[in-house]
Amino acid sequence: MISERLRRLVPYTPGEQPQGREYIKLNTNENPYPPAPEVFAALSGFDPAVLRRYPDPSASRLREAVAAEVGLSRDLVFAGNGSDEVLSFAFFSFFEGGRGPLLLPEFTYSFYPVFCDFYGIPLKRIPLEPDLSFDPRRFVGEPSSCGAAFANPNAPTGIGVARREIELLLERYPRDRVILVDEAYVDFGGESVVGLVESHENLLVVQTFSKSRALAGMRLGFAFGAKPLIAALEAAKDAFNSYPLDAIAQAVGIAAAKASAYYREMNRKVMATRERFSRSARNLGFRVLPSSANFVLASLPARSGRELYSSLKERGILVRHFDIQGIRDFVRVTIGTDAEMDALLAQMRALADDRAP
Amino acid sequence: MISERLRRLVPYTPGEQPQGREYIKLNTNENPYPPAPEVFAALSGFDPAVLRRYPDPSASRLREAVAAEVGLSRDLVFAGNGSDEVLSFAFFSFFEGGRGPLLLPEFTYSFYPVFCDFYGIPLKRIPLEPDLSFDPRRFVGEPSSCGAAFANPNAPTGIGVARREIELLLERYPRDRVILVDEAYVDFGGESVVGLVESHENLLVVQTFSKSRALAGMRLGFAFGAKPLIAALEAAKDAFNSYPLDAIAQAVGIAAAKASAYYREMNRKVMATRERFSRSARNLGFRVLPSSANFVLASLPARSGRELYSSLKERGILVRHFDIQGIRDFVRVTIGTDAEMDALLAQMRALADDRAP
Repeated sequence: MISERLRRLVPYTPGEQPQGREYIKLNTNENPYPPAPEVFAALSGFDPAVLRRYPDPSASRLREAVAAEVGLSRDLVFAGNGSDEVLSFAFFSFFEGGRGPLLLPEFTYSFYPVFCDFYGIPLKRIPLEPDLSFDPRRFVGEPSSCGAAFANPNAPTGIGVARREIELLLERYPRDRVILVDEAYVDFGGESVVGLVESHENLLVVQTFSKSRALAGMRLGFAFGAKPLIAALEAAKDAFNSYPLDAIAQAVGIAAAKASAYYREMNRKVMATRERFSRSARNLGFRVLPSSANFVLASLPARSGRELYSSLKERGILVRHFDIQGIRDFVRVTIGTDAEMDALLAQMRALADDRAP
Repeated sequence: MISERLRRLVPYTPGEQPQGREYIKLNTNENPYPPAPEVFAALSGFDPAVLRRYPDPSASRLREAVAAEVGLSRDLVFAGNGSDEVLSFAFFSFFEGGRGPLLLPEFTYSFYPVFCDFYGIPLKRIPLEPDLSFDPRRFVGEPSSCGAAFANPNAPTGIGVARREIELLLERYPRDRVILVDEAYVDFGGESVVGLVESHENLLVVQTFSKSRALAGMRLGFAFGAKPLIAALEAAKDAFNSYPLDAIAQAVGIAAAKASAYYREMNRKVMATRERFSRSARNLGFRVLPSSANFVLASLPARSGRELYSSLKERGILVRHFDIQGIRDFVRVTIGTDAEMDALLAQMRALADDRAP
């Protein structure tokens, strides 16, 4: 009774959301700080009586607020139920039934290959550089592709790509195929290309309020692109679920969009903690990739990533391990509060010492 | 740059959500009464600080609360972002790439053919009876189909099918193909078959909190079925968007699931208003189909449905018109409060009198 495509596909595995034991939870890249005071006010001012009515299906006021933040007009912005949904609509709209495989970096957000399975899109993985950075110009030599997608900063490496490199890609890649840049982590030190969507009609930029606006629990994702791309995403939405954003999510999203000053300060704290933590971890003998995100990829020579993950979990700290050839030695560590990272460093010190003879 | 499938498809058109002028809004089958007091309490007790964390991706507590209401176990229930999303996942999971066309009643919820377009599923429309009722046993003579889907009560007719007729369908239709019964409107006098999912492993029942729990603004939909069907929907979700229900929607849904006494009373009021309105409209010379839903399909001889819709809109009342051969003469009228229906009846009287010489 189950469709063959569904039987064949391997779903995305979200990070653990532990129910019983209390962990220091550094495994799903959540922000350690609460949402803005404006979000609290929007919620306490929300009248539940309006819930009997359908929400605005096109989330106009929310899109307007988000557009204003980045200096674009509302019709260059699409809003969805978390950036995963936005990405899913984008894969359907721009890559389904295309003229060749979709290009992806070899290691990147692990949901992309799942979307490809869901829609039957062939994919081609392009290798990273030896230092695990990604050079988007590697896409240029692949003209028989239906488009390209990558995360900047990349996941799970955390390594960012400079705006200039993406501009070079846009200059050289076929202009009738979409290049999707997923900026889920860009507010932690990456270089956004959202300003380029007005001049590049095949550029789609995806962002989320889950990380840098501390609203993972609210499911708010956005795409920025030329009008025809946004109109396509609207049509895809209206062929799947006309009302993906509930009335409360829209109200909360508007409040969060307007609270940029609070969030900038909060993200500065996360970045400072990341730099301090990375230095300390390197001093303990860990390899830590240079990150522009709210997480780092770290490894300890002579310990497997699986061992690191398990040892830390036993010690009450949840990080994430990807059992994938090439990054198997690493664990991905979300940047928490200073206190949480100090607790982690203490355990890392013990693990590093353990290793000594 | 846009995929051919998207370019070819005609998206679903949600009912108007007017922004400027204030209408008596009887066009999108919203409940005229507010959500339960328990919903108000759940919202005011919700701590926005938890929004920094991802919600439970499988909405376990919500599924448990909904399961308890209908006397099933949690693993026979799937929860999604409104029943449209649940239906979309179901079409992908059970009908995509299937062994023949999907069977649908000729007139039914107009989103079904759009889902078919989205996933490339061929469909076959089965005629209604002359009185616009639907006999599900008509599906039995179509064995070379990949499954069947219908709404009960049907939309936009409002006419229900007896449980016994669905049992007869289940006995005679191939047991290795899914029969999807969409019970969006069942709480307004229909006969639910949700109790049959334990004994019929190819039955999937879909429900929503948008209508009978007055939560259209919250996006909460559910599917009930045997474990393998629910597991398939979970896998489809995890290949599209792992976290479709935000943390507030889950909390509100739990509160609404537990407020059945309030909602039963509220829906009794809607049904009483519907019966009173239908009698009065018939007395004015309108044809009103017998409805088990929170809307009725009505027509006035010698007036087109389009004229009825426009005249009522001019008079400040929004209803819905479907420009589709066979139901073009009708308008669909949502049942509002007694006062709203009295205001509508006054305008209908004027229209009926107008027609007189």
